[in-house]
Amino acid sequence: MESIGSTRLFLFLYCLSCLSALTIVVLLGVWLVSFRGGFAWQSDIAHEFNWHPLLMTLGLIVLYGNGMVVYRLMRYQRKKKLKLIHASMMILAFIFAVIGLKAVFDSHNLKDPPVPNLYSLHSWVGITAVILFSMQWIFGFTSFLFPGVTQPLRVAYLPIHVYFGVAIFILATAASLMGLLEKAIFSLKDNYSTSSEGILMNCIGMMIVIFGFLTTMLVTKPQWRRQVVPEDELLLGDRLSE
Amino acid sequence: MESIGSTRLFLFLYCLSCLSALTIVVLLGVWLVSFRGGFAWQSDIAHEFNWHPLLMTLGLIVLYGNGMVVYRLMRYQRKKKLKLIHASMMILAFIFAVIGLKAVFDSHNLKDPPVPNLYSLHSWVGITAVILFSMQWIFGFTSFLFPGVTQPLRVAYLPIHVYFGVAIFILATAASLMGLLEKAIFSLKDNYSTSSEGILMNCIGMMIVIFGFLTTMLVTKPQWRRQVVPEDELLLGDRLSE
Repeated sequence: MESIGSTRLFLFLYCLSCLSALTIVVLLGVWLVSFRGGFAWQSDIAHEFNWHPLLMTLGLIVLYGNGMVVYRLMRYQRKKKLKLIHASMMILAFIFAVIGLKAVFDSHNLKDPPVPNLYSLHSWVGITAVILFSMQWIFGFTSFLFPGVTQPLRVAYLPIHVYFGVAIFILATAASLMGLLEKAIFSLKDNYSTSSEGILMNCIGMMIVIFGFLTTMLVTKPQWRRQVVPEDELLLGDRLSE
Repeated sequence: MESIGSTRLFLFLYCLSCLSALTIVVLLGVWLVSFRGGFAWQSDIAHEFNWHPLLMTLGLIVLYGNGMVVYRLMRYQRKKKLKLIHASMMILAFIFAVIGLKAVFDSHNLKDPPVPNLYSLHSWVGITAVILFSMQWIFGFTSFLFPGVTQPLRVAYLPIHVYFGVAIFILATAASLMGLLEKAIFSLKDNYSTSSEGILMNCIGMMIVIFGFLTTMLVTKPQWRRQVVPEDELLLGDRLSE
């Protein structure tokens, strides 16, 4: 059972993570609007690209991170409700990621001449993270929300789902840092070392590191595991209390 | 107490991690010798740079990762011996990192005209990882090897040391991926999408992801925690059994 001090520390770190997420979104907005000319769709592919960093970060960093924390933040809610909130936040994150990917593929394919896709290490790591995230969602949905899966299978899969959930989140965080770096080098060229835009992009990256660290801590420290509440399905036992 | 099946899985994953580390070192060697012209020191700064990716990866990825695993791999050794092996591997990793940093600073400062230092997101994340690693070593040494530190302080600091150890390792892994990406873009320019060197560098990056994932799993799964052995200082109790 956790102490009041431990709960306060959890809430303090959670507030810090929200503050860092808010800072990331505001700085991304400032960067993409003030320095990169704002947003458009296929009629203006140079500005269609700008949806890519915004939506990937909103989806696979901010929403993904908060979707994981929800079990520990709303710890006295019923398990079923938490599962639905978790799955909804993750499917929203997936939709953001798909639109974000469409934006970058368009900005490559519709260019004259077209730019090749998926050749950089950022794209390899990023597409791996998106594929693993999609698989994780499908496995999670069929195991924990789809009726008919046996209890022992759920119990056996839960720690794997939790472990890979954090691992894929860290992979997505690494991909986002690489994406920022790649964009800074491509866009700023020799001015990266002297421009304020370069410093702004680096600051976004460092805030992503801080958000990733705080979120990972919130979802991995054993003392903040969600406790079983009486309304939970009794058969699931302690191992499903995560 | 862990089962024989669990121990076998640990050893299997450890072998895979060694195999991935070996692959990383071999591929780095092939890349730096065959494509980047091998190694030199200050008389030839273009080739002095090549020590940077090699030594940072050997130090802050391969040695660091194996230095963490040592507690769980050599689980029936005495605690004192494990501490000395762990601290020695980490100080060696630090020395590799310092020489690797010297190589990149030289390759910037001795160039005509000089190239600015520490302006890219790779360098910000990387230098943060090196500074945190150094602080972690100093705190670890003074807490666990330096005589005179009280037992309660050691017990309180141990989980923090373990947690930050893994977090800084992941940060170093992200920095190495960003370094590979940065070097690929700077060196290959428009040929990144078509050259075999680009594919080789991406493969090194993906192997680093695999090594990072396996190592993190080996050192975080609770069932593989080192058990207390009779020779351990009895006063330290279970919380120091990591």
